[in-house]
Amino acid sequence: MSLIVQKFGGSSVADAESIKRVAKRIVATRRAGNEVVVAVSAMGDTTDDLLDLAHEVAPIPEPRELDMLLTAGERISMALLAMAIKNLGYDARSFTGSQAGMITDARHGAARIVDVTPGRVREALDEGAIAIVAGFQGFNRSTGDITTLGRGGSDTTAVALAAALDASICEIFTDVDGVFTADPRVVPRARKLERVTSEEMLELAASGAKVLYIRAVEYARRHGVTLHVRSSFNNNEGTIVYNPPEAGRDENGEPVEEPIIAGVAHDLTEAKITVVGVPDIPGKAAQIFNIVAKSGANIDMIVQNVSAAATGLTDISFTLPKSDAQTVLTALTVEKGAVGFHSLQHDDQIGKLSLVGAGMRTNAGVSAQLFTALFEAGINIEMISTSEIRISVVTRADMINDAVRAVHAAFGLDGEDEAVVYAGTGR
Amino acid sequence: MSLIVQKFGGSSVADAESIKRVAKRIVATRRAGNEVVVAVSAMGDTTDDLLDLAHEVAPIPEPRELDMLLTAGERISMALLAMAIKNLGYDARSFTGSQAGMITDARHGAARIVDVTPGRVREALDEGAIAIVAGFQGFNRSTGDITTLGRGGSDTTAVALAAALDASICEIFTDVDGVFTADPRVVPRARKLERVTSEEMLELAASGAKVLYIRAVEYARRHGVTLHVRSSFNNNEGTIVYNPPEAGRDENGEPVEEPIIAGVAHDLTEAKITVVGVPDIPGKAAQIFNIVAKSGANIDMIVQNVSAAATGLTDISFTLPKSDAQTVLTALTVEKGAVGFHSLQHDDQIGKLSLVGAGMRTNAGVSAQLFTALFEAGINIEMISTSEIRISVVTRADMINDAVRAVHAAFGLDGEDEAVVYAGTGR
Repeated sequence: MSLIVQKFGGSSVADAESIKRVAKRIVATRRAGNEVVVAVSAMGDTTDDLLDLAHEVAPIPEPRELDMLLTAGERISMALLAMAIKNLGYDARSFTGSQAGMITDARHGAARIVDVTPGRVREALDEGAIAIVAGFQGFNRSTGDITTLGRGGSDTTAVALAAALDASICEIFTDVDGVFTADPRVVPRARKLERVTSEEMLELAASGAKVLYIRAVEYARRHGVTLHVRSSFNNNEGTIVYNPPEAGRDENGEPVEEPIIAGVAHDLTEAKITVVGVPDIPGKAAQIFNIVAKSGANIDMIVQNVSAAATGLTDISFTLPKSDAQTVLTALTVEKGAVGFHSLQHDDQIGKLSLVGAGMRTNAGVSAQLFTALFEAGINIEMISTSEIRISVVTRADMINDAVRAVHAAFGLDGEDEAVVYAGTGR
Repeated sequence: MSLIVQKFGGSSVADAESIKRVAKRIVATRRAGNEVVVAVSAMGDTTDDLLDLAHEVAPIPEPRELDMLLTAGERISMALLAMAIKNLGYDARSFTGSQAGMITDARHGAARIVDVTPGRVREALDEGAIAIVAGFQGFNRSTGDITTLGRGGSDTTAVALAAALDASICEIFTDVDGVFTADPRVVPRARKLERVTSEEMLELAASGAKVLYIRAVEYARRHGVTLHVRSSFNNNEGTIVYNPPEAGRDENGEPVEEPIIAGVAHDLTEAKITVVGVPDIPGKAAQIFNIVAKSGANIDMIVQNVSAAATGLTDISFTLPKSDAQTVLTALTVEKGAVGFHSLQHDDQIGKLSLVGAGMRTNAGVSAQLFTALFEAGINIEMISTSEIRISVVTRADMINDAVRAVHAAFGLDGEDEAVVYAGTGR
């Protein structure tokens, strides 16, 4: 008997009909002879609705109370899902994050899992029941308070349960058929990947592919959990996200011919800040990024231009989530005198394109091919950043779709047929 | 420093504006130098909406999961209320039933409180915070599961906290000004009672007065908690429900001249079942009411007519909640042969009027005065039942308002002015 963890997002349980459909799918997995643990998100827009209410009663809601509030969302969906399964004649039991043993640190709104003690879940399985666990939520032992895991938290709940229960696979059900070589809404001939390494998936997620959240992929990679990203609207095989024992090997350690490129991701959620006229002396960059870090922002790409020798001044640019930009601009302005820069520039009309592939490691010339493809499409590159298996470039936001299509074609990723795109885009 | 427990029902926290208004009221009590513990219900129609959802996914929702589902309601209201108080600059902390130590038995949907261990609530108070506790919910230690207390559960939560924390008073905020001598919507000149004994309140609640739930009054009486029933829409004094040490004494043991009648309650939620042609031999009534009890119904009044000597048969009538009638009729029909009755009659067009007053104990002639008042108003009496401080009669449902007005006037209860009636009737 295999143990399978299944995760259903908010769009899969948006109303009573969807919940009944998901219940049937879960029962089918149970009937096939598997033990089943389900991690479920809040229904549809519940979380956003609760957030709106919170901001109506308090401009800056207390984080502890916000977590208490938001966790009501999964409490509703998990109880309804358990009822729907019971109604199909199968035993099911719902558990809050706390009851399922999701122990976290005390950072409300962005808690990290520090331990998973799924004793009650294991007990329910041993008694033949399907266990339904609230996604996104946890519990801090020292304060006794409820916490939430932040964006993508339900993916992380599923992966953490899969790791703790030694599941054979963790199925992430979503509203698309799997992981694609590019966003099918931008590139109609994008192909679904049958398999992708967790390393590539990590870079894709970090680069704006929305199908999986980066923290869940990190957790899966660290704990050796195999993921299956698939649609909750059909029975097609999705994409397997696996952990090869080493680069260039498959999960059994056999050498594989890795495709050079796994996919093209893009991201329109970032802004660029340029610190103009920074004295080109040691320690200035550290000073700037300490200020940024203290403001709580997560920065992504950083570029420092070569100093103009005549002035002894340089410019430092970085990208960060648009929602963090104002906080960072304020923090830097306060310290303008101490750092000694001239001015700040803020640009929220940027797009980021990333080319990801484990095969890049052993293939020279990928960067040159990428820059050529963009040049031929008439697209200007504003920033460049690379990792071992990724190249990211920043362009104008309104050029990003053209850029993705050009790069997707240039690297031979276009498929024969157009991909099916579903109406829903939510999670 | 006094400790005050305040209970706010669903209509008092129906939306963001109401929650902010309630927050101000709580803060005012805190600012006056009191420690404050609040028990809060789910917002407006939340509980009904969740029940509807449950019935959409499963015709008969699993009781454990239903409790898990419904408790999401108070989780939302309590977190929002704590945020709103924080936003006014006062410390507040919300607690689920489980966190507040509301230990119950395992009867899902109608759990009884077996212990209250409000350690975390006490700690929050000691740190200067206002404690917000989810009404209606508890926790069973042996199963580790969440429970709910059934109808009026938030009143019971408030009273149980007041008892466990030795509060000086338990304020029940509602949408009317207090306890009235009759329903002001039926008797415009009904008067607000300044004080009423818990014994009288118990009879009034049992007789259909909806301002307080019977279990909460029972709990208050057993644990010596003084209640103050008052409006959440104004600052008027409401009605004090107190526990005199003995009949005819006030709470200080001083003898009081008790008014004969506290009020007139009425109830249109019951139905009458008559078992026709029951053999008049010992044990038949017991047999019938064992069948009724096994079906889970709560019966109220019972009347057995004098046997007609010629036939050796008698009729037994009883009243019960309309919602239980079908179940009981089915249960009795199944056992028709074993009991040996002729037929069943079902009547859901009845109304019950009850006259309640501790002064009845020492005043003969109250019954006669009641029957005369009804006779003069042309109202026929179908059943009669009495307790030491209550007389109840059953009439036709469409005569009940006339009956209440006639009796209210006959006992000199009409006030000078018409009572203010608020639009809301919910709890």
